[in-house]
Amino acid sequence: VVLAESHNIFFISDRTGITAETLGRSLLSQFRDHEYKYTSLPFVDTDSKLDKAMEKIRQSMDSNGLLPVIFSTLTNPEHRQRLAEEDYFVFDFFGAFLSPLQDALQQTASPIAGQMHGMTNLNQYLSRMDAVAFTLNVDDGLRTHDYEQADIILLGVSRSGKTPTCLYLAMQFGIKAANYPLVEDDLEYPRLPQALLPHRDKLYGLYIDPATLHRIRQARRPDSRYASIDQCRREVKQVELMYRQENIPTLDSSSMSVEELATSLLYRADLHRLY
Amino acid sequence: VVLAESHNIFFISDRTGITAETLGRSLLSQFRDHEYKYTSLPFVDTDSKLDKAMEKIRQSMDSNGLLPVIFSTLTNPEHRQRLAEEDYFVFDFFGAFLSPLQDALQQTASPIAGQMHGMTNLNQYLSRMDAVAFTLNVDDGLRTHDYEQADIILLGVSRSGKTPTCLYLAMQFGIKAANYPLVEDDLEYPRLPQALLPHRDKLYGLYIDPATLHRIRQARRPDSRYASIDQCRREVKQVELMYRQENIPTLDSSSMSVEELATSLLYRADLHRLY
Repeated sequence: VVLAESHNIFFISDRTGITAETLGRSLLSQFRDHEYKYTSLPFVDTDSKLDKAMEKIRQSMDSNGLLPVIFSTLTNPEHRQRLAEEDYFVFDFFGAFLSPLQDALQQTASPIAGQMHGMTNLNQYLSRMDAVAFTLNVDDGLRTHDYEQADIILLGVSRSGKTPTCLYLAMQFGIKAANYPLVEDDLEYPRLPQALLPHRDKLYGLYIDPATLHRIRQARRPDSRYASIDQCRREVKQVELMYRQENIPTLDSSSMSVEELATSLLYRADLHRLY
Repeated sequence: VVLAESHNIFFISDRTGITAETLGRSLLSQFRDHEYKYTSLPFVDTDSKLDKAMEKIRQSMDSNGLLPVIFSTLTNPEHRQRLAEEDYFVFDFFGAFLSPLQDALQQTASPIAGQMHGMTNLNQYLSRMDAVAFTLNVDDGLRTHDYEQADIILLGVSRSGKTPTCLYLAMQFGIKAANYPLVEDDLEYPRLPQALLPHRDKLYGLYIDPATLHRIRQARRPDSRYASIDQCRREVKQVELMYRQENIPTLDSSSMSVEELATSLLYRADLHRLY
């Protein structure tokens, strides 16, 4: 019955399903062909919601005859059992790991499903929100006199990924991340701008390859001088020169996701994460 | 050797370790006592980096005599084997699930570790960044004439969690999320503010319990009228009245994390997610 393509993939959970998706997508990313049809089934925390979810899964099978692949973080043992009884490919996360973890910790798991609430740890929530507020406040080179409070300051040309990386650092890890855009004026004579001189030890430079930069800018301002490949090449060349002359550690944003950039910075800058 | 407390917990990965952490913390959240010592070991992608990581793990054991608990998303089979040979509690995600997934998909996993790069899928990256730019642009009730383009508009009193939830929706799912703060003037006569009337179908209200609101505001502006429990009670009461009279669907931000709020909204508003 099973073919190599077009499997229906389900993420089922009694909470948000974020963990089930993380698990499933991470596993599927190890396969060359992973263009499947994805369906999330979150908040399945009652018998009747499970009935509905099972019905959806069954219908998907009727429509293409392929056995569905299900990544589950259901915690209710009866619900997990019902799923296991079907002839599907079920990847039962808690089923696989909870029992050995009980042995390791010599504790019994308690039936409070996934207590990862941000607000329940109010101090952590507040620290993250402080970091987000700081990052928004100093975004795009604004208020450089607040750089004293920054944990890290990202440099880079326009559209090199500074803002999303800073926001991720703030939201995920509670890091106060500022960013300073290097514009043509800064790059003409490639030395560090005045405002950055007192903060050398917090500076990290984003590199981006000119072709990627061109495509990103092209999507924003098509056929502008700003987006032209010549302009992108010129800016990237100058910014590389500055990083080298000023000895600024760099990361290549063209080959990394926002999540990877943020995590790399966390470790390279040896930042104290709050979460 | 094993005691119930103070286990050293490690997250080891050849990439960022975000998946290993998400999975490990999700499992540990099922236990009442999970105040362990956490160490992340990301980017372990060479033999010599594995040597260093193993040394760190060994030292932790020397210091307290407890067997370490290791959540691993290492993909290199030799590295996984070396970890398995030690007398640790190893939770090897790819070891547990990759082989059955190969059977299910009738495909062999390819050795490209965790290809989840944002920039490699440029269109998805651009859509997310568009959503982030939109969300920042209309944050805190700014530019209400842009609400036409919003996928969703969150209402709530000051400090009820609107901004972080909107940013999470934008960064994680590429949703254009606006937020409108309900201030005292809006609440005096509890009807929807003019600017929101044309967008009724996109409105979701955040509720927060007065005690939590008080604690959050107190951390920001200690002992102000704004932070007083009386003021918090009054605003929350008025906002509840407005939600009820205007038939606005609501979510309780005091009992949910930012991630849970965002995911709940995604499903309740039936939003088209980009990722």
